[in-house]
Amino acid sequence: MCRDSLGGFPHEQTQRAVLFSLLNDRAEVGREESGQTVLTAQLFFNTVCVCVCVCVCVCMQSCHATKPDMLNVHLVPHTHDDVGWLKTVDQYYYGDRNDIQHAGVQYILDSVVDQLIKNPDRRFIYVETAFFYRWWKQQSSATQQTVKQLVDEGRLEFVNGGWCMSDEATTHYSAVIDQMTIGLRFLNETFGPCGRPRVAWHIDPFGHAREHASMFAQMGYDGLFFGRLDYQDRAHRMREKEQELLWRASDSLTPPMADLFTGILPNGYNPPEGFCWDQFCDDPPIRDDPDLEDYNVDDVVKRFLAIAKNQATVYKTNHIIMTMGSDFQYENANLWYKNLDKLIHYVNALQAKGSKVNVLYSTPSCYLQELHRANLTWALKTDDFFPYADDAHDFWTGYFTSRPALKRYERISNGNLQVICNQLEVLGGPVSRKGPFGEGDSQTMKKAMAVAQHHDAVSGTEKQHVANDYARKLAEGWQHCQVVVSNSLAGLSSSSAERIYCDNLNVSVCPLTESSKKFSVNVYNPLAQPVNWAVRLPVNGTAYSVSDAKGRSVDCQVGVCVCAAALGLVFQVQAPPLGYTIYFVSLRQDGPPPASTQKLNICVYVLQFLQVTFDPDTGLLSSLSNLETKQTIKLTQNFYWYNASDGKNMDSSQPSGAYIFRPNSSTPFGISRTAKTETVQTSVVQEVRQWFAPWVSQVVRLYTDSRTLELEWTVGPVPIDDHLGKEVITRLDTSIKTSEIFYTDSNGREVLQRRKDFRPTWQLKQSEPIAGNYYPINSRAFIKDDEDQLTVVTDRSQGGASIQNGSLEIMLHRRLLYDDFRGVGEPLNEISSIFPEGLVVRGRLLLSLDRPPTAADTHRPLAQQVVLQPLLTFTDGELNSNTRLEFSGLQAALPPAVHLLTLTQWDKDKVLLRLEHQFQSWESKRNSKPVTVNLQVRHSETHIWWRISGPPENCRLKPFSLSQWRSEPSCSESDSDSQPHAPDFTRCHR
Amino acid sequence: MCRDSLGGFPHEQTQRAVLFSLLNDRAEVGREESGQTVLTAQLFFNTVCVCVCVCVCVCMQSCHATKPDMLNVHLVPHTHDDVGWLKTVDQYYYGDRNDIQHAGVQYILDSVVDQLIKNPDRRFIYVETAFFYRWWKQQSSATQQTVKQLVDEGRLEFVNGGWCMSDEATTHYSAVIDQMTIGLRFLNETFGPCGRPRVAWHIDPFGHAREHASMFAQMGYDGLFFGRLDYQDRAHRMREKEQELLWRASDSLTPPMADLFTGILPNGYNPPEGFCWDQFCDDPPIRDDPDLEDYNVDDVVKRFLAIAKNQATVYKTNHIIMTMGSDFQYENANLWYKNLDKLIHYVNALQAKGSKVNVLYSTPSCYLQELHRANLTWALKTDDFFPYADDAHDFWTGYFTSRPALKRYERISNGNLQVICNQLEVLGGPVSRKGPFGEGDSQTMKKAMAVAQHHDAVSGTEKQHVANDYARKLAEGWQHCQVVVSNSLAGLSSSSAERIYCDNLNVSVCPLTESSKKFSVNVYNPLAQPVNWAVRLPVNGTAYSVSDAKGRSVDCQVGVCVCAAALGLVFQVQAPPLGYTIYFVSLRQDGPPPASTQKLNICVYVLQFLQVTFDPDTGLLSSLSNLETKQTIKLTQNFYWYNASDGKNMDSSQPSGAYIFRPNSSTPFGISRTAKTETVQTSVVQEVRQWFAPWVSQVVRLYTDSRTLELEWTVGPVPIDDHLGKEVITRLDTSIKTSEIFYTDSNGREVLQRRKDFRPTWQLKQSEPIAGNYYPINSRAFIKDDEDQLTVVTDRSQGGASIQNGSLEIMLHRRLLYDDFRGVGEPLNEISSIFPEGLVVRGRLLLSLDRPPTAADTHRPLAQQVVLQPLLTFTDGELNSNTRLEFSGLQAALPPAVHLLTLTQWDKDKVLLRLEHQFQSWESKRNSKPVTVNLQVRHSETHIWWRISGPPENCRLKPFSLSQWRSEPSCSESDSDSQPHAPDFTRCHR
Repeated sequence: MCRDSLGGFPHEQTQRAVLFSLLNDRAEVGREESGQTVLTAQLFFNTVCVCVCVCVCVCMQSCHATKPDMLNVHLVPHTHDDVGWLKTVDQYYYGDRNDIQHAGVQYILDSVVDQLIKNPDRRFIYVETAFFYRWWKQQSSATQQTVKQLVDEGRLEFVNGGWCMSDEATTHYSAVIDQMTIGLRFLNETFGPCGRPRVAWHIDPFGHAREHASMFAQMGYDGLFFGRLDYQDRAHRMREKEQELLWRASDSLTPPMADLFTGILPNGYNPPEGFCWDQFCDDPPIRDDPDLEDYNVDDVVKRFLAIAKNQATVYKTNHIIMTMGSDFQYENANLWYKNLDKLIHYVNALQAKGSKVNVLYSTPSCYLQELHRANLTWALKTDDFFPYADDAHDFWTGYFTSRPALKRYERISNGNLQVICNQLEVLGGPVSRKGPFGEGDSQTMKKAMAVAQHHDAVSGTEKQHVANDYARKLAEGWQHCQVVVSNSLAGLSSSSAERIYCDNLNVSVCPLTESSKKFSVNVYNPLAQPVNWAVRLPVNGTAYSVSDAKGRSVDCQVGVCVCAAALGLVFQVQAPPLGYTIYFVSLRQDGPPPASTQKLNICVYVLQFLQVTFDPDTGLLSSLSNLETKQTIKLTQNFYWYNASDGKNMDSSQPSGAYIFRPNSSTPFGISRTAKTETVQTSVVQEVRQWFAPWVSQVVRLYTDSRTLELEWTVGPVPIDDHLGKEVITRLDTSIKTSEIFYTDSNGREVLQRRKDFRPTWQLKQSEPIAGNYYPINSRAFIKDDEDQLTVVTDRSQGGASIQNGSLEIMLHRRLLYDDFRGVGEPLNEISSIFPEGLVVRGRLLLSLDRPPTAADTHRPLAQQVVLQPLLTFTDGELNSNTRLEFSGLQAALPPAVHLLTLTQWDKDKVLLRLEHQFQSWESKRNSKPVTVNLQVRHSETHIWWRISGPPENCRLKPFSLSQWRSEPSCSESDSDSQPHAPDFTRCHR
Repeated sequence: MCRDSLGGFPHEQTQRAVLFSLLNDRAEVGREESGQTVLTAQLFFNTVCVCVCVCVCVCMQSCHATKPDMLNVHLVPHTHDDVGWLKTVDQYYYGDRNDIQHAGVQYILDSVVDQLIKNPDRRFIYVETAFFYRWWKQQSSATQQTVKQLVDEGRLEFVNGGWCMSDEATTHYSAVIDQMTIGLRFLNETFGPCGRPRVAWHIDPFGHAREHASMFAQMGYDGLFFGRLDYQDRAHRMREKEQELLWRASDSLTPPMADLFTGILPNGYNPPEGFCWDQFCDDPPIRDDPDLEDYNVDDVVKRFLAIAKNQATVYKTNHIIMTMGSDFQYENANLWYKNLDKLIHYVNALQAKGSKVNVLYSTPSCYLQELHRANLTWALKTDDFFPYADDAHDFWTGYFTSRPALKRYERISNGNLQVICNQLEVLGGPVSRKGPFGEGDSQTMKKAMAVAQHHDAVSGTEKQHVANDYARKLAEGWQHCQVVVSNSLAGLSSSSAERIYCDNLNVSVCPLTESSKKFSVNVYNPLAQPVNWAVRLPVNGTAYSVSDAKGRSVDCQVGVCVCAAALGLVFQVQAPPLGYTIYFVSLRQDGPPPASTQKLNICVYVLQFLQVTFDPDTGLLSSLSNLETKQTIKLTQNFYWYNASDGKNMDSSQPSGAYIFRPNSSTPFGISRTAKTETVQTSVVQEVRQWFAPWVSQVVRLYTDSRTLELEWTVGPVPIDDHLGKEVITRLDTSIKTSEIFYTDSNGREVLQRRKDFRPTWQLKQSEPIAGNYYPINSRAFIKDDEDQLTVVTDRSQGGASIQNGSLEIMLHRRLLYDDFRGVGEPLNEISSIFPEGLVVRGRLLLSLDRPPTAADTHRPLAQQVVLQPLLTFTDGELNSNTRLEFSGLQAALPPAVHLLTLTQWDKDKVLLRLEHQFQSWESKRNSKPVTVNLQVRHSETHIWWRISGPPENCRLKPFSLSQWRSEPSCSESDSDSQPHAPDFTRCHR
């Protein structure tokens, strides 16, 4: 029997997984041979996928009947279980540390299942698979069977279904796709089609990224619901009845590929006022004992009808939705259901007396189905929902930068660790998991990364001890990965020499390189293109020789500070695509003296591709030129801090906090008008070191052969002895004529235009001239005019704005003295045993000056290099003579437009490969066009069971609700020519 | 199958109900004819009863096996559900006003039943039938069947089982018996033998009355458990291993008639520290996922074993009990049981490694069974557990007086209302419930009274709005009763004239008597002996004539104040036992002038039986003489206040509050050294009016033919403009040589000796010289020496003490400015719309001076007259000529020693009659001896199905644990001669 389908379309939820059968112990992908496996990646930013267009609905009819002539109120019982926030994810699961917050997810699921059994009318939705998975594996098979039945009957419905409900402002799309994959895969494998979420449910994130909507659309969700949007936006949409809309979430994908129905929930994600029956709530229960003094049925029904009718005035159809639940609710589901049962009974009983309101248990997909049947046209939206403000002085733009060290660690973990762990597990074959260095796994890291995507994790809006736990989990994941990497590299290189990891290179710590006289460096590049990379190693000697895998000498130099502290050994390496190469380093008894710092004595640095000038009076940057394109801009850069509001302010009592950015003046304080400078020049790199204050310094790095200018900033401990909270920015002031416009990326993918004091869909009344103009920067931001584009690639998510013409500011660090009343209950004041005086953070901004039409050709690969930087591993002493010194998983690099997004083990016999076209349709003359890639697996005689011959949009499920597509043939009908690209999971086992 | 019995004794829990078959429409009891129904009431203070000595055990084996060679830890999951405290009983049931306190009993029972079903090992006990009854009637028959099965299998066990867990310090035994009856009856009728509680469970009351233990013993409970006792007492008992003991709870009943095994729980009624897994608790749950960072099984088990072993050192056997629950816990029972399941599993798993600790789910009766099997002799205790202190300056002796108006209203409700309502319902027959004045019932009042017995109800320790609700419930009950009374009296008197109630006579308000020129007064006497009573009615005329039912003129007089305000019409009435008589009142155009007040000009009042002198200088009482016995004592009486501690004190931060009495000085402040006095003399009564302050006054009433001196005090509004909380006492200072000893009653029944700064079972270290010497007075207190005994009969429960030789003080009113940190969260500062300046309270003390050996002959009947004072109802104008002007339910009065405790409708065909011998064995030469009463029902030819020929002790179940009775024959074995007095409930329907 087919589940009540949405508008006749078969439901499809499969992660667009490209499954790559792999029975041999190693795979290399993407050989440009004329193999039979051809992939045409012509969808900008669309992950190439296989579309499963078979109707596999086996779920039972699950939506309650509605009444066409009445106002139908869909009650959606739900819980919102943060995958860490005030407590760690483990504490939340078990209900530990209830002194901090009462919450125990194990009990929620216990209780909901019990209560669903009691009355088949009841419904529940569940969201976070990280919790559900843990609960599931502790259940008896009888309980599991019961739950399966509930799912099959649509009484328990999964929505969203990722491992967590990811943050939208500070996450990178690759990590989001990964975390969704883990969750959806578990649901699919455990429950089959009925377990597949049909609705994306992002009720809590603090603003909504267009790229998230695009991903959800491409994942096949039928709709997206959320709860938080700008209060002015909501007021406008309520007036216009535009709280339900169609979001066109990409300017590059052909509509309706990234079109997604989007519903804004009426009350955040909470129940209407007076109707919260959870154990956390104090609303009066329904007291229906007529003998009782406090009998209140009439009052409850009257209040409910008033709320329902009022809500109906701001939505378009005769269906409205009410979210009956909230954070960690339903731990004792009986309270909710007992009262909801009564509410439904008593409200509907009035129909006999002429009432035209019909209440029912429902789910988001049942509600969506009714909206679809209403056959309306919805408003179209093409921008995003940032920034989010819930009142005039309450802009949630602080968390774009909050906890910058955690944000960086998450990004490193995603790039350097998880991807490499995944890739090397595939490339190394089974020996990776169990090999000379023991048993390793990538699962621990995958789950740690998935958890870190939560909207109170990488967002930086958790309590300190929870932030520590996320970091701990990532570190633990990396421990497991190191075994995989060691095993894999041992296999690939035929060398079982001990492999040493230097995780603290960012602070120039590596005991091996600091003590060894002879060691080798394995440089693994996770990109599908070769990479150049500057290696900087802490050493104690003054001269070294470096040679590459082919034995060629490599230019290198040791730099020291005037204080004689080591600045390290620097040399450029080049690593092959999806592979490694090895460099050898030996201490030299003789050799050139180390380069040492000296006063900045030159003001113009002319490099191969760049020219950079400094103002000799201030020590600040003064201009930047691209010598290839012959363009020059004025460029001044300095550091400033906003004085964080302490809430003792007449306009509003809102202080800056983990979530909220609220400077108490629109003018930031300069840290120093001038920088104390030193310079050090080596043959590989020239560095200008700038000191602005004891707690703010910067290294401007000019690599001889680089097209980008590196600004390595160090900020902290931010002083607070003046009792002022500080939000530290760096600002680039240029001669570019920006017309109050700048650009930021969305989750590291497509770029959106931002205009000062402006929102595309409503007349903004700006009340916070700084905080109200901040947007999330995930990987890059740029400013441009007709001639010049200055792009800044960041190494983590940060907040940024362009307040003045030609300027771009990026918030680097925040140290605050007050909680901002959004629940976290702590000021964002990061102190640890390592940093007792306050956190010190170091990071990099990579600047590139280009002509606008070609800028993307630089910043797209550059940003991927930052996200997926090479992994360095070390071996002491000589290597075994039969060591394989170079390896590439690809026979040739993929074209620049094609990014190898995922290569990971799926199960014992399969790997998951994701390729994407990484250019937006408009941004590069050279790269914004279709690319064809031939794929062939080595040993192609075995088990190649799919090929893609055309773009998947031919058979893609379209979100409904737009008139255009209503006339289009449905997926299954157009399936006649698609036989080759309709894989069947069951066939994978052949 | 017989439930695991306690030491071989059949279990018996029936309320000793004397069921009186009544098919005709009226009954009269106690004719002294030589009828076949004879009752010998020779048990002092033992309610005469019928003992059901048949083994009716059908419950299944329910106690888990224990291990003789191990320490067995009995985990007893339980909830403690106050029948009103911070919220009203209705709010607690439904979970309303969770903003005050999160608590919803409906959900507790839902949840516990669900969880018991999940695992047959689990156990639960439930206590308060007021809640259970309400829940039960809302359940489906399927759920009811499930619950029956749980009860039959001993998985759900009722303990205590009364309508509530009554207060022990401020309740009257008659009301306690009634509330227990309602609860136990419901359980018996609903569940049969398996539903009958075997254990009294008084875990929360703040001190424990001996009379309560006596009642529990007589009700057939096997044991009593409680949680609160003096901290010094506990320390002593822990040292001596005497926390489990045998309480000999009567000095009059033949042991072991009132012997009761008594167990003091180890941790109040809470779980051991660190092991509270309720939703209200923050203790860490058992995290047994070994993959988890926070895995804590080893730690939990280790902590548990340490606690168990430590606890075992202060108890005698290798069994210990742990109460796993607390106030309103188990609303989400899954949290508790899930963790308890794990605890049991992991702790017992260690037995395989040599651990000698065995943990099991248990109940108090299973625990008790193991103690019984241990075959030990327990310490004997014959006093009580008052007062209760939980620290050196924390004596819970304030609540003996807290809310004096509520305490009085509860007492009036019990006496005047409930008993009369019950009696008249029986005497009037079916027309009482449905008659000329509509439908009435006594159930509403019964339940209101039952609820008022709760240990946060009449105790005065609830929040103000809850106190109001108790009063409202009583008032509502009385509305229902008034219909019964009107119907009944209409039937009995053959007059359907409208019957008017003047409920505000205590403040001289009665619109009828104030306006009517001719009316009649029906005086109904609920006692089994005739009563003399002074009627005082507010009137506006100056002269009236009064005549009795036989037409004889009655002496009467109107008194007025100097201010010309009416003092009312006063005359003495005499009413027959268990019946009424009618008096006629008419306004006289002529007649003597009213008596008016004048300055006190005489100092010696010589009455028929008493002589009273006043000090002309001070206006205070100075001596009291009994003219019959020719004894005279010096007697001074005045009013004082203790300054309530505000907690800002070095010794302790404990303030006085609803529970705690803590004066900040041992010397009370006098209100005035002298009293302003006036006197008014009528032929019926002479009154001396004393004003001590604008807020303290008193009327000393000297009825011409009375043996008692009446002190009607009025206190309030207690001034607090000096910001000092006040605890107002009156103190009688006499020439009696008391040797620091005085006497108080226990729940209105037996009297206990109290000695200053002394406790009978341990060496008291007195830390509060006043509060630590206060004891509850329920109905009387006295001081005596060899010659003189001055007895004070009170009209409500109050606290009292004898601090100085010859003195007796009684606390009348309390007005406090601070909460005392015991949860109520409000200062005891009673203000209402009627008393916006603070509550004014009026009450009476009745003083009687006697020779000690005969004093009880006066105070026993006197106290019953105060408890069961006559009910006055009024009819305007002339009565119908065929009105029956007198009626008695008895053909003759019962002997003075026999008190008619209960006469109430049991069901349609049966009434419940309780008679008791009301004298202690030692207190009266005349009355402390067996009495024989013949009972015969009119229309004795029908349906008399029982008779009692001997004292019930022959077949009484004895509490085990004392060596004496272990050799006694069990009840069923001695049953051979008891055929006639073994009623069978099923036979009632013949």
